[in-house]
Amino acid sequence: MNRFIQIVEVGPRDGLQNEKTVLEPAVRADFVQRLEAAGAKRIEAVSFVHPKYVPQMAGAEEVMAALPRVEGHSRIGLVLNGKGYDRALGTAVDEVNVAMSVTDGFGLKNQGLSVDQQVQMLSEIVAGRANAPSSIDGAPGATPKLSATLSCVWGCPFDGEVSVQQVSDLVARIAALGVEEIALADTIGVGDPWSVTKKVGAARQAAPDATLRLHFHDTRNTGLANAYAGVEAGVDVLDASVGGIGGCPFAPGATGNIATEDLVYMLERAGYATGYDLDALIDTARWIGAQIGKPNPSALSRAGGWSAKMVNS
Amino acid sequence: MNRFIQIVEVGPRDGLQNEKTVLEPAVRADFVQRLEAAGAKRIEAVSFVHPKYVPQMAGAEEVMAALPRVEGHSRIGLVLNGKGYDRALGTAVDEVNVAMSVTDGFGLKNQGLSVDQQVQMLSEIVAGRANAPSSIDGAPGATPKLSATLSCVWGCPFDGEVSVQQVSDLVARIAALGVEEIALADTIGVGDPWSVTKKVGAARQAAPDATLRLHFHDTRNTGLANAYAGVEAGVDVLDASVGGIGGCPFAPGATGNIATEDLVYMLERAGYATGYDLDALIDTARWIGAQIGKPNPSALSRAGGWSAKMVNS
Repeated sequence: MNRFIQIVEVGPRDGLQNEKTVLEPAVRADFVQRLEAAGAKRIEAVSFVHPKYVPQMAGAEEVMAALPRVEGHSRIGLVLNGKGYDRALGTAVDEVNVAMSVTDGFGLKNQGLSVDQQVQMLSEIVAGRANAPSSIDGAPGATPKLSATLSCVWGCPFDGEVSVQQVSDLVARIAALGVEEIALADTIGVGDPWSVTKKVGAARQAAPDATLRLHFHDTRNTGLANAYAGVEAGVDVLDASVGGIGGCPFAPGATGNIATEDLVYMLERAGYATGYDLDALIDTARWIGAQIGKPNPSALSRAGGWSAKMVNS
Repeated sequence: MNRFIQIVEVGPRDGLQNEKTVLEPAVRADFVQRLEAAGAKRIEAVSFVHPKYVPQMAGAEEVMAALPRVEGHSRIGLVLNGKGYDRALGTAVDEVNVAMSVTDGFGLKNQGLSVDQQVQMLSEIVAGRANAPSSIDGAPGATPKLSATLSCVWGCPFDGEVSVQQVSDLVARIAALGVEEIALADTIGVGDPWSVTKKVGAARQAAPDATLRLHFHDTRNTGLANAYAGVEAGVDVLDASVGGIGGCPFAPGATGNIATEDLVYMLERAGYATGYDLDALIDTARWIGAQIGKPNPSALSRAGGWSAKMVNS
């Protein structure tokens, strides 16, 4: 059996929230279902942020209402605080991802909270879950699973360099709250693969029982190198955005996430399993490019895949 | 002292030869000098191929005549056969790189020679050097240094998959001829970093005394991941093309080399030394983009570099 690498598709959230074109909830739900048809099992489908700040994510409830639950498929809702978390509970999201920042500068700009205030916010969410029904995947009314994503792990547009210690300290605090999955994000795409090895190693030591997940942007073309370093460091869960669309409206200079199809190509070419259908994924990348009115930046949607079979047939 | 990674700039040859716009020899010589001003010490400056096949490389002698020798700077001429080698000897090139292929299919298509015929061709060049003046870098009339580049190491557009054994066998034959530097090229950009580790390891075993050099194309966005894997496998010499321009006219679907500025960014961000001035390199990328009339695909020429200093100043 080949090692399985789980790719969390973030195009409908991190992808679309940075595109100028605002898509209707029905189109976004369609997008989620096309991605699922191409093999995505976990999708960051919606964000429970105020539409005043991120109009692209307006109508999260409508998106979720248009998506009937499917066994084995998980739709994730992103939240920035307890208010967003409560909104998420009113929908059929299977998981909630709490966005946090490893720096005060980005935390204050992105969600009005310092790092300490974010940890307090997360602990209140965790406390509120203690009396709620236990988490059973897909069961109606069950408490959604919980994960946290740490922004700016490889550098902050406001505070500058981020140390290994800063990252491991915050990872330890989050793990201590019982959060089972912690994602490290290179929000502005400034990381290099050597620093991925270091920070993943430190996070692993700080939270030996947590699942680590990685989130890279390809702003400076290091995204796949960073993903490779992460997989080599033992991480089995990676975020990616179909077509390489997306970024972050509050992170100057940030451009798209690593493209799902580029990541799938690299991994499957090396013998890893991802569960995706590369051709269907490329079709979906072209489809969403047409919806937002611009060609997407992924390499695979331009060059296509490659295998010896194609040459010899 | 930080580990030094030498980047061989291939924009004036592998870059320009795949662009539709044909630049005059004087512009190409200017290009070489701009690259040298940005920090390039070794540049693939010209190709001694017939202009009927590659009009972009016509006038190699004129390019070289416009470049006065500079101590510590090496200009490389690419050749496909003994005829090209003899032409190179009539110029001031400091090095000759013999292009070969690890597959018969590409060798026959690209230079009309099977693998065995290429080895024979190379051995004749080597034999001809035995009675020539010894190689002294930069000395007028000295025999230029010799290296060989193996195309299609990670896959061939005509023959399909390439095995580790095929690569190590050919590397061993070339090393046995006394060639001191051997480059492994992913001509059509289909490699993955795990296979880089494997093939570099096998080549190292096959030629323990040779310098290994790597040449990647970013066709499927794996170029920097492959470069990272190569550096981790102990390789200190990498090809790159400013702006990410280039490809190969005889390799269907091939697109640009990895961009020099992207590679410099990744390496220097991690603390490696390259000797390049990143800003000057980005300026040169934009300049050559203007010459060939299209924006170049490198990430750094779009996003720019990043350091904590930029944030805090």
